[in-house]
Amino acid sequence: MPNISQKGHLMPESPIRKLVPYAEAARARGIKIYPLNIGQPDIETPEVSLNAIHNYNQKVIAYSHSAGMISLREKLVEYYKTVNIDLKASEIIVGAGASEALLFAFQSIMDPDDEVIIPEPFYANYNGFATNAGIKVKPIFSSIESGFALPPIEDFEKNITKRTKAILVCNPNNPTGYLYSKEELEVLRDIVKKYDLFLIADEVYREFTYDGRKHYSAMYLDGIEQNVILIDSVSKRYSACGARLGWMASKNKELMATALKFAQARLSPPTFGQVLAEAAVDTPDSYFVEVKKEYLARRNAIVEGINNIEGAYCPNPAGAFYVVARLPIDDSDKFCQWLLEDFSFENQTVMFAPASGFYSTAGKGKDEVRISYVLNVDDLKQSVKVLDEALKVYPGRK
Amino acid sequence: MPNISQKGHLMPESPIRKLVPYAEAARARGIKIYPLNIGQPDIETPEVSLNAIHNYNQKVIAYSHSAGMISLREKLVEYYKTVNIDLKASEIIVGAGASEALLFAFQSIMDPDDEVIIPEPFYANYNGFATNAGIKVKPIFSSIESGFALPPIEDFEKNITKRTKAILVCNPNNPTGYLYSKEELEVLRDIVKKYDLFLIADEVYREFTYDGRKHYSAMYLDGIEQNVILIDSVSKRYSACGARLGWMASKNKELMATALKFAQARLSPPTFGQVLAEAAVDTPDSYFVEVKKEYLARRNAIVEGINNIEGAYCPNPAGAFYVVARLPIDDSDKFCQWLLEDFSFENQTVMFAPASGFYSTAGKGKDEVRISYVLNVDDLKQSVKVLDEALKVYPGRK
Repeated sequence: MPNISQKGHLMPESPIRKLVPYAEAARARGIKIYPLNIGQPDIETPEVSLNAIHNYNQKVIAYSHSAGMISLREKLVEYYKTVNIDLKASEIIVGAGASEALLFAFQSIMDPDDEVIIPEPFYANYNGFATNAGIKVKPIFSSIESGFALPPIEDFEKNITKRTKAILVCNPNNPTGYLYSKEELEVLRDIVKKYDLFLIADEVYREFTYDGRKHYSAMYLDGIEQNVILIDSVSKRYSACGARLGWMASKNKELMATALKFAQARLSPPTFGQVLAEAAVDTPDSYFVEVKKEYLARRNAIVEGINNIEGAYCPNPAGAFYVVARLPIDDSDKFCQWLLEDFSFENQTVMFAPASGFYSTAGKGKDEVRISYVLNVDDLKQSVKVLDEALKVYPGRK
Repeated sequence: MPNISQKGHLMPESPIRKLVPYAEAARARGIKIYPLNIGQPDIETPEVSLNAIHNYNQKVIAYSHSAGMISLREKLVEYYKTVNIDLKASEIIVGAGASEALLFAFQSIMDPDDEVIIPEPFYANYNGFATNAGIKVKPIFSSIESGFALPPIEDFEKNITKRTKAILVCNPNNPTGYLYSKEELEVLRDIVKKYDLFLIADEVYREFTYDGRKHYSAMYLDGIEQNVILIDSVSKRYSACGARLGWMASKNKELMATALKFAQARLSPPTFGQVLAEAAVDTPDSYFVEVKKEYLARRNAIVEGINNIEGAYCPNPAGAFYVVARLPIDDSDKFCQWLLEDFSFENQTVMFAPASGFYSTAGKGKDEVRISYVLNVDDLKQSVKVLDEALKVYPGRK
């Protein structure tokens, strides 16, 4: 039997998905699970975009332009105007989700053994994309005590080597919900300018900011127009994760010409996702007003609820729809599995993502979990109740 | 300004796409182009699958299973029964087109500098996927004189090294249309067995066979169940290239568990492509009877037409919807560009893919073009007429 690749062995298992078999077994035992482990919102996809799918009237589902339909890219340019980002259609390459777009970016700027610096905890699948491209992630620790603020500039500088090609930030952050400030972005600008690095900014949660805070895009930064690569997506903005429609954007022509070659090899992004995305740009503002109100109430419910549990701590982040909370436990991997395998309260349990999977440094995040607040407030309150009960009896309680 | 990657520099430009700017310029001058350069059929996508899209009634476009919706994979199992291939749902991983599925396969079995043997000419984007994964393509020459039959077993054996991990064949073949026989598949079986290699079989054109010939799948081969990786797609079968819906299939559990990790990193394949594909399996047989009749008439028109041109030669392949034809020209890249830039006949011209892009060996295919017979018979006849006129005046005629 022929061998699989070394890369295949190294490829990490998704921390979000690895508990799925335990969840399936729990459901089979009749237990109701509150799934707070995955960034799959329960919010409805805007009607205007679903209608575009229902009314699609082409008879041949043909390849589109490798960079995405021009009508879609022009519509995205319109969308960016509304958030004060100035882009041209030629500065956008559409992919099968931000995932594919990020892979195009990684492959276009990094060779095997090159390095990308990412503040940790970070979106777990960045590890998978890095392994896929053969590159190394250099994590920089950000602490729950600071609410996961940007680590100090010295921490970045001491990790920069000859192989460092980029810094990657997700803003607002998945998994922490932290919203980086203008000042923090300016720190990043200074570093990438000084060391001539790319700054990859994953801004798929741009719209989800709370407490009157405004999102500050990496595209606003002066003087590093050739360095910034924006990663974006309709998945979260319009609750359309299954559309698999994201994109990369940059003003760097050489980079975009290179990324286009990777895009051409796979011919084109998905037609229906593009149709949905183009229509979604016309989603009325009232939709976002409602959605943000809902997420704010959820965040407040989860943060307050967790902080009322003895021994638990949760920062109060200003963005996205995640928090990373500290719990009085020995090992979040064990705890999250135990919740599904060995625990129930009134025939219910909760599913979280162990935070260990969001750290690249071994041993970090062992007493933390990522919680996606993608259920309604009542369900979240009940989830907190179930968690509280679980912690009372968990054998590995600290 | 930060540098792009070495890989980005090495990434080949698509030979199918690189003439597009010349075509756009020709159209801007009012010239009608017969586009025979790309495998984008004009055939309508089956109504049953378009209806499934129009009637899709979920309110949240959510992630699916990373390997694809179970209902889709079970439907694909049903489809495979109709072509005498025995597969389980767990032996299928769905991707954003066969492109993504093939990348999963490459990454799962090969590390950088590993080698895959492919008879050339071959589908040009295999080069792109190989560069993407950092692996090397070892081409084995097949000749137009033999109609592009499988090269002799010695040619494979002398190219096998310690780094050889797989043989890749496309059957029926893109770009040649050649349909490999049972005996040729058995030669491949013997080699992969002897050297313990994977056999990657790209069978996306399975249905398109002519002259009473039947497709012989790599999945029929006995004794190499752990070695065969099937690559498949709805793009050509149901004329749904834009759906971006393909898959890999294998009975090798370790391989599938590895490929699933790559699939999990990007979360899921596109929802609407999956909906379309699941419905497409119920396409009535009458659709294929009509489509095959149409393609057969087209093949006959193009083969006969080319062979009637003085100095030109075209084999008569039994599958897919492509031919590679030899023309009395100095350089197919120059010729194909000249057709768009400097030539027209009655305000018309033709667009082919230079065959050089389908060879990995430098200098091969310089007097050959790939022709996709994706237009109706009248348009094909007119294309041949235009080609005939072009060859009369082309300055590089041999």
